[in-house]
Amino acid sequence: MCRERLDAWMAPQFLDAWPPSFAEPVRYPLFGGGKRIRPALTLGAYQSIYGYDTDPSPALPAAAAVEMIHTYSLVHDDLPALDNDDERRGRPTVHIAFGEPCAILVGDTLLTQAFSVLAQAPLSAEVRIELVAALSDAAGYRGMIGGQVADVGLGGPVETLDTLTRLHTLKTGALIEASTLMGALVAQAQPDQRRALRAYGASVGLAFQLADDLLDADEDAGEAGPPSFVKLLGPAATRSEAHRYADQAIAAASELPHPALLQALARYTVDRTV
Amino acid sequence: MCRERLDAWMAPQFLDAWPPSFAEPVRYPLFGGGKRIRPALTLGAYQSIYGYDTDPSPALPAAAAVEMIHTYSLVHDDLPALDNDDERRGRPTVHIAFGEPCAILVGDTLLTQAFSVLAQAPLSAEVRIELVAALSDAAGYRGMIGGQVADVGLGGPVETLDTLTRLHTLKTGALIEASTLMGALVAQAQPDQRRALRAYGASVGLAFQLADDLLDADEDAGEAGPPSFVKLLGPAATRSEAHRYADQAIAAASELPHPALLQALARYTVDRTV
Repeated sequence: MCRERLDAWMAPQFLDAWPPSFAEPVRYPLFGGGKRIRPALTLGAYQSIYGYDTDPSPALPAAAAVEMIHTYSLVHDDLPALDNDDERRGRPTVHIAFGEPCAILVGDTLLTQAFSVLAQAPLSAEVRIELVAALSDAAGYRGMIGGQVADVGLGGPVETLDTLTRLHTLKTGALIEASTLMGALVAQAQPDQRRALRAYGASVGLAFQLADDLLDADEDAGEAGPPSFVKLLGPAATRSEAHRYADQAIAAASELPHPALLQALARYTVDRTV
Repeated sequence: MCRERLDAWMAPQFLDAWPPSFAEPVRYPLFGGGKRIRPALTLGAYQSIYGYDTDPSPALPAAAAVEMIHTYSLVHDDLPALDNDDERRGRPTVHIAFGEPCAILVGDTLLTQAFSVLAQAPLSAEVRIELVAALSDAAGYRGMIGGQVADVGLGGPVETLDTLTRLHTLKTGALIEASTLMGALVAQAQPDQRRALRAYGASVGLAFQLADDLLDADEDAGEAGPPSFVKLLGPAATRSEAHRYADQAIAAASELPHPALLQALARYTVDRTV
């Protein structure tokens, strides 16, 4: 449901007056089979306040902006100078399919247009600027890029559970936490609801990353690769940590008027197989 | 005056809690001898409404954000996959000095933090979100990135004066126009003043680019290189076009209460030697 609504909303944003030669490489990663977990969290956070019979459309621009930021980060991460990945989601990465100059510009475009989408959302000026503040903070140096900087080794060694947890809290957790916070902002949630949603988002972010490490460990068995929770803790303890964080998220959500969808999403982040 | 005020304002934004290993490569292009024409236009537009005895501090966050967007675009433009430039402003480019992974992240950081600076400015929510809308529009696909896309050949051939003018209107003009518009937004200028400032910005943007082409032609004499106004029009006609646009800008500014600084800046864009 989330995917169809979101895709139907996003598609026209990237068709108007763009030459097909550039619209195609921008659409390629954005409509390329992502799980849409972040926008589902934004819409889920909105509905956790107002219930499931409420139309979540007011939260769609925020959900789209979060997904655009996530997508830009993947496109730039995959570049030869960074992770040098040839494949993502079973298809060639953007720089393999369309060339490296195009991939750099596609990432820059998605990052820029995410803020344009928020600026033009049919919401009050107060809510729109709160969304811009939340997203730029989560995507910036105190969030995602800070994690990237640590990941490429510019922030010192990543060897302990503390430094690894901090890296992932920044690289993945900050944007996931912002996804729920932005749903709360659109819903104009009360301060205690907002706190509950932030706590939920922080725990779900770590649960998600621990589960990702387990899935990657299955794929990369025997490879050297970067530090991971599985290497530091072993698979059994990583799995139990993931479930502990998911349980924390579920408990945090129980303070909200309509927690069921968010609780199901928390469970999904650790039970998923992709 | 503009440079000192702006640098004094921007510096602390990039020192708090950043590890030196990443703060340094971000500061390197941002405090690396740029002419600061765009922020001067933002502050000049603000003072064109209120006069030169007024403190232009309210426009500093907008001026900084514009310079950060301009700087990010240079850092990414210089990358090996795009213009592959080893030197800028007489120093090694960011990817030469700090490596390509770092240069990609420095650009992403400056782009992201520009919106963070606007979101946190001590201005009303209405003005802040108008600034985000203006900047994301100018930096995005309908502006600077659209010009970049055309420049790398993804938007079709650039062979005529019309297609070249369009490319530069997008690649350089949109952000220069936004620089003056953002000063007008901070000043909460009247609609006719805003129109005058946009007209001024559009003309100054083209004057600037024509003058740049003349300066580059002096440097690159005999090289093949990309299409340019000098190649299409010859140096004499390019110079006269540059002056025609500067005169248009000066005329547009004359409708403003305090036009002298903007008029001097328009004259400078075509008379400068660097």
